[in-house]
Amino acid sequence: MTGSTAATRTSLALLVLGATVAVAAQQPPPIELPKPKLDNGTTLVQALKARKTAREFAGSALPLQTLSDLLWAAFGVNRDDGRRTAPSAHNWQEVDVYVVLAQGAYVFDGRAHALRGVVAGDLREATGKQAFVKDAPATLVYVADLARMKDASPEDRDLYSATDAGFISQNVYLYCAAAGLATGVRGWVDRPLLAKALGLRADQRIVLAQCVGFPAK
Amino acid sequence: MTGSTAATRTSLALLVLGATVAVAAQQPPPIELPKPKLDNGTTLVQALKARKTAREFAGSALPLQTLSDLLWAAFGVNRDDGRRTAPSAHNWQEVDVYVVLAQGAYVFDGRAHALRGVVAGDLREATGKQAFVKDAPATLVYVADLARMKDASPEDRDLYSATDAGFISQNVYLYCAAAGLATGVRGWVDRPLLAKALGLRADQRIVLAQCVGFPAK
Repeated sequence: MTGSTAATRTSLALLVLGATVAVAAQQPPPIELPKPKLDNGTTLVQALKARKTAREFAGSALPLQTLSDLLWAAFGVNRDDGRRTAPSAHNWQEVDVYVVLAQGAYVFDGRAHALRGVVAGDLREATGKQAFVKDAPATLVYVADLARMKDASPEDRDLYSATDAGFISQNVYLYCAAAGLATGVRGWVDRPLLAKALGLRADQRIVLAQCVGFPAK
Repeated sequence: MTGSTAATRTSLALLVLGATVAVAAQQPPPIELPKPKLDNGTTLVQALKARKTAREFAGSALPLQTLSDLLWAAFGVNRDDGRRTAPSAHNWQEVDVYVVLAQGAYVFDGRAHALRGVVAGDLREATGKQAFVKDAPATLVYVADLARMKDASPEDRDLYSATDAGFISQNVYLYCAAAGLATGVRGWVDRPLLAKALGLRADQRIVLAQCVGFPAK
């Protein structure tokens, strides 16, 4: 190995390291979620009675405990074998719940019950086309990882990525009804724009987005 | 008008009447559902903890009150303005819940909270490809009426008919978990066969089917 080659390799290595650091710097640190409390006493029937779509939100942030309980209800692990509160075709568990907060975007890791950082900064406005989307303190974005839908036909991917997001979204509706939160699911999303903002791969598909917050006064 | 033309018209009218009667004879009488009781005390969190997919069922029929409560939870009216326990894109309410029982197939009329007769006879085996589908006393079939999705693009019809069926199906999962019933949603359906058996129009689309029954002993 000549000295100049070694120098080039070192430079390249530093360059790669620099790029990695630059990307990492855009990621917010993970959010450690408290253990879900699961002590809400609202009955299922009461939650079904109160279920509705809201499009106005108070600006205040969701407490971390509320976020923890909400995400467990949405798509948390409810059995020892890792299965979830919502079903998925072939147990693919292909829908990732992204959580867009004022300080950054995260992805919910159901098994670890934690929020992994994705992108720092406020992307809430990029999650939808309506004016109210920037007011809600949290938007959940249901993203299907098509790579997990092994051997599925394109038609089946379309169908199941949508139904599987629907199951999760309804859990969020009912949890919000039980907890006195406001929520509204939305399909009117600029998907290419949001996918770019979240740094999604080409085989990740945004299905729906859902605002969650406190009801407007 | 000549005598022979009048006679032809009378024959045609009788023929049409006969055909109508023949079709009507295949329809079972409607089932009057008791008012939903809505007194199940299971909390939403308990239901979420117990939510799971079953593929084995005891053969016994569902009591009419249970069917009533189940259908209200699935997609019943929960507000004075006719809105439902599950959302739908643009409030199209395009998903009809067909109910396939041993004695016949029905469609749930959410506003009247009644089951209108569709086809007499046991179609349960036609609702899926797995052997267990004939064991469950009831199968709900989520059928999107594309005619109600005004001005939607084909992509939006695909997406929303699927997500909207998913919302309803998750309500059924949670109600079953709360009521000690077994349930499993299925996408593996011979859709042309079942559509023919149910007499669906070309612009009605079967999204998913979901067995409901008592757990196998």
